[in-house]
Amino acid sequence: MLSAGFMANTARPWCLEFRLRLTQPSMNFEILNTDSKTRARRGRLQLSHGTIETPVFMPVGTQATVKGLTPEQLHSLSVQILLCNSYHLMLRPGEATVSKLGGLHGFMGWDRPILTDSGGYQVFSLTKFRKVTDDGVRFQSHLDGTTYDLSPEKAMDLQVALGCDIIMALDDCLPYPSTHETAAQSMRRSMAWAERCRIRFDQLDSHSQSLFGIVQGGIYADLRKESIDRLISIGFPGYAVGGLAVGEPNAMMYDVVEELEPHMPADKPRYLMGVGTPEDLIECVSRGIDMFDCVMPTRHARNGWLFTRDGHIVIKNAQYKEDDRPIDEACRCPVCGKHSRAYLRHLFMAGEILSSVLNTIHNVYFYLDTMQRIRQFIEFRRFDELVAEVRKKELRRS
Amino acid sequence: MLSAGFMANTARPWCLEFRLRLTQPSMNFEILNTDSKTRARRGRLQLSHGTIETPVFMPVGTQATVKGLTPEQLHSLSVQILLCNSYHLMLRPGEATVSKLGGLHGFMGWDRPILTDSGGYQVFSLTKFRKVTDDGVRFQSHLDGTTYDLSPEKAMDLQVALGCDIIMALDDCLPYPSTHETAAQSMRRSMAWAERCRIRFDQLDSHSQSLFGIVQGGIYADLRKESIDRLISIGFPGYAVGGLAVGEPNAMMYDVVEELEPHMPADKPRYLMGVGTPEDLIECVSRGIDMFDCVMPTRHARNGWLFTRDGHIVIKNAQYKEDDRPIDEACRCPVCGKHSRAYLRHLFMAGEILSSVLNTIHNVYFYLDTMQRIRQFIEFRRFDELVAEVRKKELRRS
Repeated sequence: MLSAGFMANTARPWCLEFRLRLTQPSMNFEILNTDSKTRARRGRLQLSHGTIETPVFMPVGTQATVKGLTPEQLHSLSVQILLCNSYHLMLRPGEATVSKLGGLHGFMGWDRPILTDSGGYQVFSLTKFRKVTDDGVRFQSHLDGTTYDLSPEKAMDLQVALGCDIIMALDDCLPYPSTHETAAQSMRRSMAWAERCRIRFDQLDSHSQSLFGIVQGGIYADLRKESIDRLISIGFPGYAVGGLAVGEPNAMMYDVVEELEPHMPADKPRYLMGVGTPEDLIECVSRGIDMFDCVMPTRHARNGWLFTRDGHIVIKNAQYKEDDRPIDEACRCPVCGKHSRAYLRHLFMAGEILSSVLNTIHNVYFYLDTMQRIRQFIEFRRFDELVAEVRKKELRRS
Repeated sequence: MLSAGFMANTARPWCLEFRLRLTQPSMNFEILNTDSKTRARRGRLQLSHGTIETPVFMPVGTQATVKGLTPEQLHSLSVQILLCNSYHLMLRPGEATVSKLGGLHGFMGWDRPILTDSGGYQVFSLTKFRKVTDDGVRFQSHLDGTTYDLSPEKAMDLQVALGCDIIMALDDCLPYPSTHETAAQSMRRSMAWAERCRIRFDQLDSHSQSLFGIVQGGIYADLRKESIDRLISIGFPGYAVGGLAVGEPNAMMYDVVEELEPHMPADKPRYLMGVGTPEDLIECVSRGIDMFDCVMPTRHARNGWLFTRDGHIVIKNAQYKEDDRPIDEACRCPVCGKHSRAYLRHLFMAGEILSSVLNTIHNVYFYLDTMQRIRQFIEFRRFDELVAEVRKKELRRS
């Protein structure tokens, strides 16, 4: 595969180019095997800060930290790659500060891969005042009202300053539901922005990073098809699916992915943004997705919502007051190995910081363990059995 | 040394007594060496859950957790013994619940020694409504206003239910300043309570625990002398100094300890409650104290106040925004080994949980490292050099 950097740099002497490519390896993706009865793929993605096994789930480290966990704890949970939010880091402490302190990796003390989003989604979901034009978006910080501009070019400058392995094109974010006309207009704006991102990123010569394009188009199959075709013609080393998990029914999300998948390049990683429940992960892996991120395991943890193989438990419930069992008896995480539901309930009721810490460790472990099972089932070409198992449980609970 | 349990139990058959003493070892304290020019002592205290090296600092785990840290993190910081607050645990989740879940050790997943206080200090400092009589204290919970009674007998029942290695007699807590008359009255009440605690504790036959008496008497040397004499006549395996660090000048606190020390049994551990700064620890070790506890390292950590060998830094200050140095360049803690002041400032400003976690790790490490240095200097019989070093630094800063 040609690297993003290689495609972009025709002006550099070949020897310099060669040296850069050797010292700053760009992305490489290989499919190790595919499942026999589903579209699931078992892959390996080489990035500047390490190699990750796919399908992969990326815990979210919004403000340069997965809330409550040290880098050592993330390591011990076998976290392969984190997602951090450019929007938050642009506001605080600012990308220039992060860049001076060794980029986001050096700043937060995390040596494995990181993906940064473009900031677009946060601008659309967090800010009160914003104005979107074809040029970009002007918004006021949700922290102190300061006015910022975010254009495709600025999104690239920002993410190159942060210096993470994978960076994302700026896209226009669409609410659900939206009409076909609105979705079409928004998607075409996103595609124009994607092209400008590509151009700017190539100018920046950042060989250790890879830029992904984002498919938009709401729930409309024709728009999704137009979007992926446009992105392929621009050319990216990886393709994300954006604009889902924004309120539409789950079945609709699965359908969009299912219809889009045959049009996505088979040899490039596919990333479904902001998804989802453990069941969503399995359903979407079966539809050909390789990468996921979601705040659900970490945010739910802080709210005392804990995942188990038999559904979830809400730890504040009185029934756990003297329950000496672990969260999930089948779980091998350090929290389940040591602490009772009763203790975790006590920490939650007492508003203790350790409540968030331990709950987050468990939920992140649960998600990563789910991904590990997914990878194993694909390796054995029996992923359909895992899908069937999950659907059976879902049915029992509904 | 006779164990508290051995002294107490005359009604039991000797064989049962023997078995209990074998399976549930009570306390043993030995002085390994003393300093040449100060009253500092290097000791070793054997408790049911392990042996601790003294002088020792006990981090505070108020509600069955050192705020933000997992038991594994406490282990890796070489925490030898924790202090937990009976008052908080009585209110939430209740001592009966803790007892059912394996006692405080099992409940919180901590396998090394724990000391519980009696709850007296919290009743006097946290509750809005309370009524003290010779019998005990009636108070309303600071959480929900529920009325509770705490008597010497109840304080023993409570702490025996929690099941920790060292438990404390209930004492009447005196504000500073107080007149000699008030202090005398309060001290004598505390001594009467101490005797009732001793009787009740002996009835409870809890051989794995040791009960310490608490010297009171405010800043008055004659009352302190009367108090320790009374406690010695009741007989305890260890003696605490209470009622200090409540607002009096530091020099006055040092004087009280210095005047009291010759009257305290030399072969028993001495515990100065609620003290203090790193300088206080060194000053009071030089006056013969073996054990300390204080919320300062942990509470200050959460407020962004970080200890260094050259004083403290307030991490929110703008000067640290792009400071890539660790908190303390001489510190070997895991935070200083990995994270910059700039990152720690960012976490603090962003209100991140990890701010509390990392700051707490550093401050607890700093305190325990100070204790380690204290023990080494005593072993070399050169503790006066450490005292001189600290006084020189104090002088430079003032």
